[in-house]
Amino acid sequence: MNRRNFFKKSALAGAAAISIPEIVKAALPDTSSTNDLSGQNLSKGATILLQGDSITDAGRNRTDENEANKQSQLGNGYSLFIGANVLANHAGKELKIYNRGISGNKVFQLAERWDKDCIDLKPNVVSILIGVNDFWHTKTNDYKGTIVEYEADYRALLARTIKALPGVKIAICEPFIIHGGKALDNTWEGDFAPYRNVAKALAKEFKLIFVPFQSVFNEALKKADAAYWGPDGVHPSMAGAQLMAQAWNKAVL
Amino acid sequence: MNRRNFFKKSALAGAAAISIPEIVKAALPDTSSTNDLSGQNLSKGATILLQGDSITDAGRNRTDENEANKQSQLGNGYSLFIGANVLANHAGKELKIYNRGISGNKVFQLAERWDKDCIDLKPNVVSILIGVNDFWHTKTNDYKGTIVEYEADYRALLARTIKALPGVKIAICEPFIIHGGKALDNTWEGDFAPYRNVAKALAKEFKLIFVPFQSVFNEALKKADAAYWGPDGVHPSMAGAQLMAQAWNKAVL
Repeated sequence: MNRRNFFKKSALAGAAAISIPEIVKAALPDTSSTNDLSGQNLSKGATILLQGDSITDAGRNRTDENEANKQSQLGNGYSLFIGANVLANHAGKELKIYNRGISGNKVFQLAERWDKDCIDLKPNVVSILIGVNDFWHTKTNDYKGTIVEYEADYRALLARTIKALPGVKIAICEPFIIHGGKALDNTWEGDFAPYRNVAKALAKEFKLIFVPFQSVFNEALKKADAAYWGPDGVHPSMAGAQLMAQAWNKAVL
Repeated sequence: MNRRNFFKKSALAGAAAISIPEIVKAALPDTSSTNDLSGQNLSKGATILLQGDSITDAGRNRTDENEANKQSQLGNGYSLFIGANVLANHAGKELKIYNRGISGNKVFQLAERWDKDCIDLKPNVVSILIGVNDFWHTKTNDYKGTIVEYEADYRALLARTIKALPGVKIAICEPFIIHGGKALDNTWEGDFAPYRNVAKALAKEFKLIFVPFQSVFNEALKKADAAYWGPDGVHPSMAGAQLMAQAWNKAVL
């Protein structure tokens, strides 16, 4: 089954709602167009879940984590910018958006908390950004996991998700580095690439959406350096997080 | 002098830089377009200042207020969403953005701190959102200021700004209410309108940009209620703040 087409078809019933950029156009008819999300993929009442590590977490308030759409539970990173944009652009659809990223997580740690932090929420859209710690912690935290385990764990997590949530739309976000960042050394370019490639291959294998963040940041670095987009090379700046949200919107919605 | 055209002309030198949506397009060539700000109005090294009351302030960290572009000093409201979007979309232009809104401010209080919190920053773009407290505090805080004083103070502030900062681009943001909000009663619709009208008339008088936030929220209320866009009718929600940022981007940039 091509689940992406399935989702698109099932969401058509909610497509009559006019997206918020049209509100802005109506209020400001004499100036140029703003962003233009179609929103065809979000059915009324849909739940969106953002999952991952510190990049997703970004200081979210865990006490509020059951309060969908609350700003504090979305944190201060790309999850916040996605949430704000989705809610502004799809008013009237009664969407729910949650951030359940946890700083430091590797893919096996997502799996450990997946029932509580994914399946139980019954999401219609699940976005996953994971992988940088699966590599990084082998260098800094004496973590012994391998690329083979990372791939097996990630594949099992996806299969489990699809089985538990028929019709779910899954977006695999490419783990990335921002070249020139202070936490990176010369080994990252070659040694981290397999982790990116696994994510991309799994997206293809399961016919899932793929958000090519590495390509996004590579393009971004033509305009400004890592200090601008993410000083340590792993955690995006505000500008980097906003850029991620724009890319995510384009790829997923 | 038509200062808006002046600014556009003077900014042409910086227009060769490609805006960030093109980065997203380059990285994601197979999907639909994202937002498409022209950015022709922002010259290299330009300073943008956001000024106003609690709506602008939105919990900003005053300790960091001299650190341009720092997320904490931008707060958690529309200023943050404007800042993130501007920096993501205009990388390489070395822009500086500051939030100097202060909760509770009326126009005379902006004037009291205008040298320190505007003129001294030498901004190229100044965005002002003020007026709701000039009315609200007459109802709740025993404030004795009148609409006549509001208009005179606001006109003097604008004349002073234009004199001190030749070539500055000023955006007058319309003060607004979100109909149905809990802090509003039936008197607001009629009695607050003159404050909105003064802001609009002053923008016309000085040939400044006008951001019609009341129209934006009136349109938004066709899609969802005040609980969604700003529960108390004065302070926008996350979705409301994002909507403001989208409108601001469209009107100002």
